[in-house]
Amino acid sequence: MKMLPQEIIARKRDGLALTRAQVEAFVTGVVSGDFKDYQSSALLMAIVLKGMSPEETGWLTEAMMRSGRIVELPEITRPKVDKHSTGGVGDKVSLILAPLVAACGLCVPMMSGRGLGHTGGTLDKLEAIPGFRTELSDAAYRQQLQDIHQAMIGQSADMVPADRKLYALRDVTATVESIPLICSSILGKKLAEGIDALVLDVKFGHGAFMPNEASGRELAEALVAISASMGKPTSALLTRMEQPLGRMIGNSLEVIEAIDCLRGEGPEDLMEVTYALCAEMLMLGGIHSTVDDAMAALKAAIQSGAALAGFRELIAAQGGDPRVIDDYKRLPLCESCCEVGVESTETMYVSGLDARSFGEAACLLGAGRVSTDSVIDPAVGLELLKKVGDRVQPGEPIVRIHYRDEESCAAAEARLQTAIHLASAAPSVGPLVVDRISHKS
Amino acid sequence: MKMLPQEIIARKRDGLALTRAQVEAFVTGVVSGDFKDYQSSALLMAIVLKGMSPEETGWLTEAMMRSGRIVELPEITRPKVDKHSTGGVGDKVSLILAPLVAACGLCVPMMSGRGLGHTGGTLDKLEAIPGFRTELSDAAYRQQLQDIHQAMIGQSADMVPADRKLYALRDVTATVESIPLICSSILGKKLAEGIDALVLDVKFGHGAFMPNEASGRELAEALVAISASMGKPTSALLTRMEQPLGRMIGNSLEVIEAIDCLRGEGPEDLMEVTYALCAEMLMLGGIHSTVDDAMAALKAAIQSGAALAGFRELIAAQGGDPRVIDDYKRLPLCESCCEVGVESTETMYVSGLDARSFGEAACLLGAGRVSTDSVIDPAVGLELLKKVGDRVQPGEPIVRIHYRDEESCAAAEARLQTAIHLASAAPSVGPLVVDRISHKS
Repeated sequence: MKMLPQEIIARKRDGLALTRAQVEAFVTGVVSGDFKDYQSSALLMAIVLKGMSPEETGWLTEAMMRSGRIVELPEITRPKVDKHSTGGVGDKVSLILAPLVAACGLCVPMMSGRGLGHTGGTLDKLEAIPGFRTELSDAAYRQQLQDIHQAMIGQSADMVPADRKLYALRDVTATVESIPLICSSILGKKLAEGIDALVLDVKFGHGAFMPNEASGRELAEALVAISASMGKPTSALLTRMEQPLGRMIGNSLEVIEAIDCLRGEGPEDLMEVTYALCAEMLMLGGIHSTVDDAMAALKAAIQSGAALAGFRELIAAQGGDPRVIDDYKRLPLCESCCEVGVESTETMYVSGLDARSFGEAACLLGAGRVSTDSVIDPAVGLELLKKVGDRVQPGEPIVRIHYRDEESCAAAEARLQTAIHLASAAPSVGPLVVDRISHKS
Repeated sequence: MKMLPQEIIARKRDGLALTRAQVEAFVTGVVSGDFKDYQSSALLMAIVLKGMSPEETGWLTEAMMRSGRIVELPEITRPKVDKHSTGGVGDKVSLILAPLVAACGLCVPMMSGRGLGHTGGTLDKLEAIPGFRTELSDAAYRQQLQDIHQAMIGQSADMVPADRKLYALRDVTATVESIPLICSSILGKKLAEGIDALVLDVKFGHGAFMPNEASGRELAEALVAISASMGKPTSALLTRMEQPLGRMIGNSLEVIEAIDCLRGEGPEDLMEVTYALCAEMLMLGGIHSTVDDAMAALKAAIQSGAALAGFRELIAAQGGDPRVIDDYKRLPLCESCCEVGVESTETMYVSGLDARSFGEAACLLGAGRVSTDSVIDPAVGLELLKKVGDRVQPGEPIVRIHYRDEESCAAAEARLQTAIHLASAAPSVGPLVVDRISHKS
């Protein structure tokens, strides 16, 4: 007998596990309208507060994945591996990683989302490149994967429609913070891409969605376990997100920094995370069996220029102007800059750069979305002249603001004033990649 | 600064108390549409699972009450006291109580609801009387209260609109079961009536909304505390609802039984509860100061015929045919009856009559609503020929079914087969009124 939505909600409210059929009834009901929005949100809140077993979360993930079109890529002979990050400030890793691992033998069929709030989105960054298109026809997408082994597009509306509806609902009903709901949303989307394996960058800290290492680890373990239970070899790296990653925040600025990285001139912290994620991908894809071999291949691909050539191909294939690689001025950039420092009479050290505030300051400049219909200004952003641990002489600036108008610059500067912390001694800075959680199914 | 709905939801999700302003923002937002249904249902679920303090519940109740028109009755000089029952099977107490306490010096401005599910509604019962109108203009209502000191009507749409919206939402989102939500719904409606004091009949047991004495007591104490905190002297009686109250279930049948009671020929259990509630009302209204005095006055009003005369006046005032009092055949009644017993070869005693199943069987006959748009048949119902503790000879019938068609009769009979329990010895039957919870503010 078919259960009414309120009967399914009542079970979860009472802390009982849902059956596979009940989870499926929910997800198909969300798409068909049999579950009204007000019933979905009540069930989502019950899930937030009563949790879901790994089994239930697996069913939810699978139902999400199957709620729309699933891509299958049998014509691709290379191992198809993707990466997903839970989001951080200055996180332009995908732009470096896709051409880099494609140069090392993988195929990267990456479907990404838009940024919202203080973290930017990969598609927004790519669209800073004049002409770059993030929507491709299925045929063009497949051909591109065959030709250059990488593509970076948005997920089309016919894929995971249940997640699309539920994500919008969660955002306005305070039901975002839930491991089972986060897992099913991330993995439902990624596993619909037709990939063979998945690497996850689970970030934790003040600038990340997960506030501390314990909650980050919990999410990473849940993601890996569920993805593995669905037959996908999956690894997660647990990475710190306290200060912005790299030196650039803002869409054109992050494209510039990604190109610098592909040229072998990237900042250390950004390359540490990028190399670690790429190495995981190469190992999961079966290209290399040790981290050392993978790292050697990755460094060679940078040094030979193969990775940068791959990015050039990617830009060209998706309609962008590849000349931006040799001439950053072809990217939309601001004419106005100002520099922000902290007053002091003696030499100090940067002890903290609060990533979230930097992300929010970038949003105030127009680099990110405050709401889903915000228009992004690709030119604006922040440039970190110092990172945590760097020495600061009296009067030395710490951040350069690239701004469009004085008003937004003043707002961003005010936000940054509380985000920069100095100390009289250099702080100890731990490794960015804290742990690796893996499960080869 | 005004909080977004999702920020208010997040506070309750995290187990924090809401402020008065946040509770008011919720209730006014429900009416204005600033709180969307999907946001309301998420908050309702968070309230179900995280609870509300007495203070929060008080604010919620007051906001509900103030969400629409509040009746004030300054022209009424008598004490204005109402009664509310949390609902039971065969509960026709209101029909007896209103004319009875009006005959003893109170004014009863009663606004009631419709029945839903296995318990009947007072308005549905009254509408079994040909011509009886449960909607009166404000002027007619006030005039009637001045003239005959009692009225029994439905609450108009401009009163407590927040409760109307939330109640409909709770019903389909599994968020009914919550003491703060139940309290604010009941009291928000009752306190908008302009009464001086309130008596509550909180029923517990298999046939009631509250399944056991502990949960019934918890609800009764919460109701009394919150109503008192809002300045209304309030008492609650905690009453058992295991077998149907009285002998009749069904709308015409219950009107007949109510008239029998007012004539002094009512069944013992029904009169026990009715007298106890009426005595509380007379004491809270300041007409009598002891139960003994109140009971003496009530019995006198029955014996003198004053109470029955009051019911006649009520029927006439609201457009009904008062001749039903002397001629039950003027009520819609069924031509077809059948009797149900339990096979046995020796003398037995009735040990249980499961109230909920009796209510459901009456629904199957057409006496109640399965959904809000069900049409009620006033003629059908059940007549208990035996009550718990009664002796049953072999072959003696226990229930008489008044039915419209054979199909519904068979369905009701099947439901009753599991609802009647016999034993070889008479069971001990405890008092119906288990406790009295009072707080004169």
